[in-house]
Amino acid sequence: MNELLFEKLDNAYEEMVVMRRYLHMHPELSFQEHETAKYIYNFYADLGIDVQTGVGGNGVVARIKGGRPGKTVALRADFDALPIHDEKDVPYRSTVPNVMHACGHDGHTATLLQLAKAINELREDLAGEYVFIHQHAEEYAPGGAISMIEDGCLDGVDVIFGTHLWSLFPSKTIEYLSGPIMAAADRFEIVIQGAGGHGASPHQTKDAIAIGAQLVMNLQQIVSRRIDPIESAVLSIGSFVADNAFNVIADSAKLGGTVRTFKPEIRQMMEQEMRRIVEGTALSHNCEIQFEYFRGYPAVVNHEAETTFLKEVAETVPGVDAVVETEPQMGGEDFAYYLEKVPGTFFFTGAQPETPYPHHHPKFDIDEKAMLIAAKTLGAAALEYQNKA
Amino acid sequence: MNELLFEKLDNAYEEMVVMRRYLHMHPELSFQEHETAKYIYNFYADLGIDVQTGVGGNGVVARIKGGRPGKTVALRADFDALPIHDEKDVPYRSTVPNVMHACGHDGHTATLLQLAKAINELREDLAGEYVFIHQHAEEYAPGGAISMIEDGCLDGVDVIFGTHLWSLFPSKTIEYLSGPIMAAADRFEIVIQGAGGHGASPHQTKDAIAIGAQLVMNLQQIVSRRIDPIESAVLSIGSFVADNAFNVIADSAKLGGTVRTFKPEIRQMMEQEMRRIVEGTALSHNCEIQFEYFRGYPAVVNHEAETTFLKEVAETVPGVDAVVETEPQMGGEDFAYYLEKVPGTFFFTGAQPETPYPHHHPKFDIDEKAMLIAAKTLGAAALEYQNKA
Amino acid sequence: MNELLFEKLDNAYEEMVVMRRYLHMHPELSFQEHETAKYIYNFYADLGIDVQTGVGGNGVVARIKGGRPGKTVALRADFDALPIHDEKDVPYRSTVPNVMHACGHDGHTATLLQLAKAINELREDLAGEYVFIHQHAEEYAPGGAISMIEDGCLDGVDVIFGTHLWSLFPSKTIEYLSGPIMAAADRFEIVIQGAGGHGASPHQTKDAIAIGAQLVMNLQQIVSRRIDPIESAVLSIGSFVADNAFNVIADSAKLGGTVRTFKPEIRQMMEQEMRRIVEGTALSHNCEIQFEYFRGYPAVVNHEAETTFLKEVAETVPGVDAVVETEPQMGGEDFAYYLEKVPGTFFFTGAQPETPYPHHHPKFDIDEKAMLIAAKTLGAAALEYQNKA
Amino acid sequence: MNELLFEKLDNAYEEMVVMRRYLHMHPELSFQEHETAKYIYNFYADLGIDVQTGVGGNGVVARIKGGRPGKTVALRADFDALPIHDEKDVPYRSTVPNVMHACGHDGHTATLLQLAKAINELREDLAGEYVFIHQHAEEYAPGGAISMIEDGCLDGVDVIFGTHLWSLFPSKTIEYLSGPIMAAADRFEIVIQGAGGHGASPHQTKDAIAIGAQLVMNLQQIVSRRIDPIESAVLSIGSFVADNAFNVIADSAKLGGTVRTFKPEIRQMMEQEMRRIVEGTALSHNCEIQFEYFRGYPAVVNHEAETTFLKEVAETVPGVDAVVETEPQMGGEDFAYYLEKVPGTFFFTGAQPETPYPHHHPKFDIDEKAMLIAAKTLGAAALEYQNKA
Repeated sequence: MNELLFEKLDNAYEEMVVMRRYLHMHPELSFQEHETAKYIYNFYADLGIDVQTGVGGNGVVARIKGGRPGKTVALRADFDALPIHDEKDVPYRSTVPNVMHACGHDGHTATLLQLAKAINELREDLAGEYVFIHQHAEEYAPGGAISMIEDGCLDGVDVIFGTHLWSLFPSKTIEYLSGPIMAAADRFEIVIQGAGGHGASPHQTKDAIAIGAQLVMNLQQIVSRRIDPIESAVLSIGSFVADNAFNVIADSAKLGGTVRTFKPEIRQMMEQEMRRIVEGTALSHNCEIQFEYFRGYPAVVNHEAETTFLKEVAETVPGVDAVVETEPQMGGEDFAYYLEKVPGTFFFTGAQPETPYPHHHPKFDIDEKAMLIAAKTLGAAALEYQNKA
Repeated sequence: MNELLFEKLDNAYEEMVVMRRYLHMHPELSFQEHETAKYIYNFYADLGIDVQTGVGGNGVVARIKGGRPGKTVALRADFDALPIHDEKDVPYRSTVPNVMHACGHDGHTATLLQLAKAINELREDLAGEYVFIHQHAEEYAPGGAISMIEDGCLDGVDVIFGTHLWSLFPSKTIEYLSGPIMAAADRFEIVIQGAGGHGASPHQTKDAIAIGAQLVMNLQQIVSRRIDPIESAVLSIGSFVADNAFNVIADSAKLGGTVRTFKPEIRQMMEQEMRRIVEGTALSHNCEIQFEYFRGYPAVVNHEAETTFLKEVAETVPGVDAVVETEPQMGGEDFAYYLEKVPGTFFFTGAQPETPYPHHHPKFDIDEKAMLIAAKTLGAAALEYQNKA
Repeated sequence: MNELLFEKLDNAYEEMVVMRRYLHMHPELSFQEHETAKYIYNFYADLGIDVQTGVGGNGVVARIKGGRPGKTVALRADFDALPIHDEKDVPYRSTVPNVMHACGHDGHTATLLQLAKAINELREDLAGEYVFIHQHAEEYAPGGAISMIEDGCLDGVDVIFGTHLWSLFPSKTIEYLSGPIMAAADRFEIVIQGAGGHGASPHQTKDAIAIGAQLVMNLQQIVSRRIDPIESAVLSIGSFVADNAFNVIADSAKLGGTVRTFKPEIRQMMEQEMRRIVEGTALSHNCEIQFEYFRGYPAVVNHEAETTFLKEVAETVPGVDAVVETEPQMGGEDFAYYLEKVPGTFFFTGAQPETPYPHHHPKFDIDEKAMLIAAKTLGAAALEYQNKA
Repeated sequence: MNELLFEKLDNAYEEMVVMRRYLHMHPELSFQEHETAKYIYNFYADLGIDVQTGVGGNGVVARIKGGRPGKTVALRADFDALPIHDEKDVPYRSTVPNVMHACGHDGHTATLLQLAKAINELREDLAGEYVFIHQHAEEYAPGGAISMIEDGCLDGVDVIFGTHLWSLFPSKTIEYLSGPIMAAADRFEIVIQGAGGHGASPHQTKDAIAIGAQLVMNLQQIVSRRIDPIESAVLSIGSFVADNAFNVIADSAKLGGTVRTFKPEIRQMMEQEMRRIVEGTALSHNCEIQFEYFRGYPAVVNHEAETTFLKEVAETVPGVDAVVETEPQMGGEDFAYYLEKVPGTFFFTGAQPETPYPHHHPKFDIDEKAMLIAAKTLGAAALEYQNKA
């Protein structure tokens, strides 16, 4: 049966590329993906597949029943884009200024649509049921997964698989990992309320920039001094804004950043130590410092049995040169929420073009042939899972 | 003769207030003071006084010759406003959004205009010549003084006097100081060029905010460790901008600030030590840091003889309760340039309203009666100077 | 055969305790362990076992040949003590002030001696050869392992096993890990040469303490900003000495510390980034900073096959409740050098007393019963290895 | 009368040098100056002068009455030495290891003794009374002045004069200043109580060195950010001690330093801001930090009338080339206490040798001819003061 699926996917590859490029040219920001949702919906509707739109927001879910009873397998692809200006010089460059598919979600979508079409054609000979979860808003917390789950996208689902095309892993490879594979991704905001004044009279002020510099320095010591070196944790301050005339002393400064961790107790400790240092710094300078910590997606924790299963399936997929155990990534993914509800695994599909750029880079692109590998691996996993004990 | 002058000024006070309030309602930014210049020019022209506009830019200079030969005495008032939004609740509040006379230059101008009018009426009985320098652009380097001097405003001048109405000194006082009274006011810009990236992957980046925080901390040690504690120096970073999404690492950060000093050798050392620390920080982080240091106004250094003269004159002015030796101010003033060319002195006239705010504050205001004190002191100094040995 | 061995060890336990306590009362510092070496040598000599002392320094090596040909298996125990003052209140407390077996090497030695005695009694029925490596100077780089290897202690050896009694792991457990189990442990020294002077005149000095504080702060950012968060690295400054009168400014400051890593490329990067920051800091302050980086023991990297073998053997040892995969430790061990030459594995034997203290603590002690577990596990591994394909 | 005095002093110069060199070779530390006190006492006793020893400790006070009534004038010289090892290569080098007259007190003593002898010879023709205060323990708080005053050394005194031979001012000059001439010199001690541990496990510790580095950095911002730049203040940390093995994390760190200020309100603010930052840092790191602030000598504040008097007298002293207004010194002096009780002034006498070293330097020396200038100036002031209105 897999051979038939693989053949159909080989034939669908050209269309897959066309679709991916169309989506690449028409990206939409998280929570604003109305046209993309319509595009996905229409594809299913035109094929007569049972499809529902508006799931938990802009989400689209299609379901295909096999000819025989069996397990219900969900496959997920996300479809939102990023507020980045496309700097690539290619015919399929984004047509929308400052919006770009710089993370490969266009490829995820084209992959899943063509896989669904192929499975649909084989459905009478298949056992079980196949759920195609097209998720909006992966890039922006709280993300689309939570609301789609609440809206029923996992109802009856026995297992879920998802993949990420990855520009920094070699093409023709599958990267898997049991346990935490992507980090919990939290956000924080700090507002230092000093007391502004003339740049020539520091003693009449509380210099919010000088206080902020101390805070940045002191926060950096949490990772190096307070966290077990065997564990992973990141604290990055991405934004420091105190935008004044040169000859004043800053009244306030606004800092924002992210914390990444894999384990709940480390996550907890990061927040606690940050809070302590913020309070101590405020006391040192007799000023107020607001600190808000927003928990983002939890860590993506792959289930062991499903991960081993996926690894073994991937080793049988034609075109896959290597199936390798990978290291966890500090990036976040709201695929985490699905894995809190049902067993499953999230893996990477190597998609390295000749000149690779990291994800979220204005020149990001993928090796499109990786879509075919991804489709075959997801498809084989879905079909083989029916045979799993 | 002084008594006659004082009487005329007493009579002119009401008009002085009207004019000051008119100017307060119609402020213009540095180098854009076209209407204010016209207003001043017309005042002199209407009185038939010899007046020249467009001096070194928007400057206006009027000259009144006395009936007898004598010394040429210059008096200076500045007339530009600041990019601050007036938050006072008064009838004469600024009518221009985000532009405000928050430093008292409106009062300086009204004071000098009425003083000129009074002197004009007495001119036949006076010795010498009187030059009224209405200077544009004091608030913004390179300032108006340099170009007005180049354009001849000091030609033939023997001595110059200037005052600043000061909201933080008690009304009915004159504050004088021989030697440095206001600081050299320099500006600097620093651009840290790190290497941006994803907030979860600091090791692939050079974090411009973390580097910037180190730089701020290290720069603060120049004043505390490198400068003789007997000397005065200020280094304030007023602006720190790295405005990014929370989950990135900053590619660059832009810092701006000011340095204040009184002595040329300290000024030189501040720049040199800053440059050294910038270079060392760049080396530490294998990144590029641009550093530009712009020299602003030099220190205002009052001449000893003229300062003693002014002090003694001030003690004879009716309405002046106290003439006090003051401490130097870390603020800058381009009156400095006049004193590099001719003898003279710059002094403060106390102008504290009931609820005083510091200069450049959105609620700044003055006690208007101080204008009368200022006019009488400047006028008496000008007339008495003719009798000085 | 294992049963016989286990029985002999059970009978030897009492003597094992006596020997361990004797050694505990007579600790000797690294490279000065003359009496301990004699003690070990005499034990073997008295039993008529082939033993060689002075191996690569104070090392002692005994060899026992079995009755049949087979593989040569080495077992290693270290026997030096630490410059710590014993604060325990027990009869077997150290009799030497400021010297203490605060890491369990006394237990390692007693364990291996009794194990050797038992194997010696069984030798005619055993295949292969057994090498008992009693290593001096594990606690102090360059350590004793290098010179003992150079002096031939591994000659003909096919495999090596070693264990560490561990006060923080539960008794009756064995902890194993394939790959890196203990870190590369390097040392560094930094001497900041500022320019001293009177505390009241910082501007005439280069304040070595202020410079040192900047250096400490800046070095702490290497781990948090320059190292991949998935990798482990530690940089600790353990010593900061600038011991002066309160009213001077420090002429120099001396800092010392350690770097711990598992991977050679991370180790390399730590040194390189430290060097960069030291150079940048020296440039910032126009002073000299000496930096010396001494590579200590490399990481202990366990061989996969031997680790799996050891784990399986341990699961058969009576008295072992749990055999668990552990996490790597940031501490160093010169067992690393043996594993660079021959296959083998290094594991932990849980030895937690009622009130456990960490290793190197003045109140450190072990659950002595763990010695029996350690002896049985090492012994079973040695004997079983003869049967390994 | 002054001419007679000057002549006697010229003749006494050779003996003055002999005495100074003897004292230089036999220095004694503060509060241990028993032999020096005897030496001084015997000098007076041998001349039959009324002298008292053991005044407030090791202090010696001699009193000479003139033939006529008049004012009582005190002159003060200090006589303790410093814990510094003399590195000069001269015949009169210190014979006591690690003790040295590195501040010129030997010269002060020889000067005052010979001056007393000269005045004694002239006493019948003099008005008033002359009190020679030989003070012990100027170098070490609480100093000898307080206890000598309590013990009556100022009883009946109308005015006091004192001088410091100063190696960094040109010979043949007198430096005077009205108001604060030397700073308040305070001392502080900080003990950071972290939690020690193994260098490889920072997360189980509270790293006292890392905390200390933050504290040093943050304290340095008090002077640059919290103190009016017009005012003078110094905060120097002279000592930072956490002396451990390289592979541990410091349990505690001990810091010591000094604060120098001229004005009571600035002194108060320095302590308060330090305390705040210490508390904030302790909170940030959840550790304890002890902070003790010891007030040392207050600022030496010269009285205006007596300073003007001294200046005018100095201008008449033969051999004095220049009498110059000086700037305040950040060093401390317990002469401050005398000036809190009676009018007077403290001045510098230039004593610059060919190769000058700063005070407290191991190669410090003086131009001995300055002693003659000092003796004449102090003597003339004492005699002339009788004629003062």
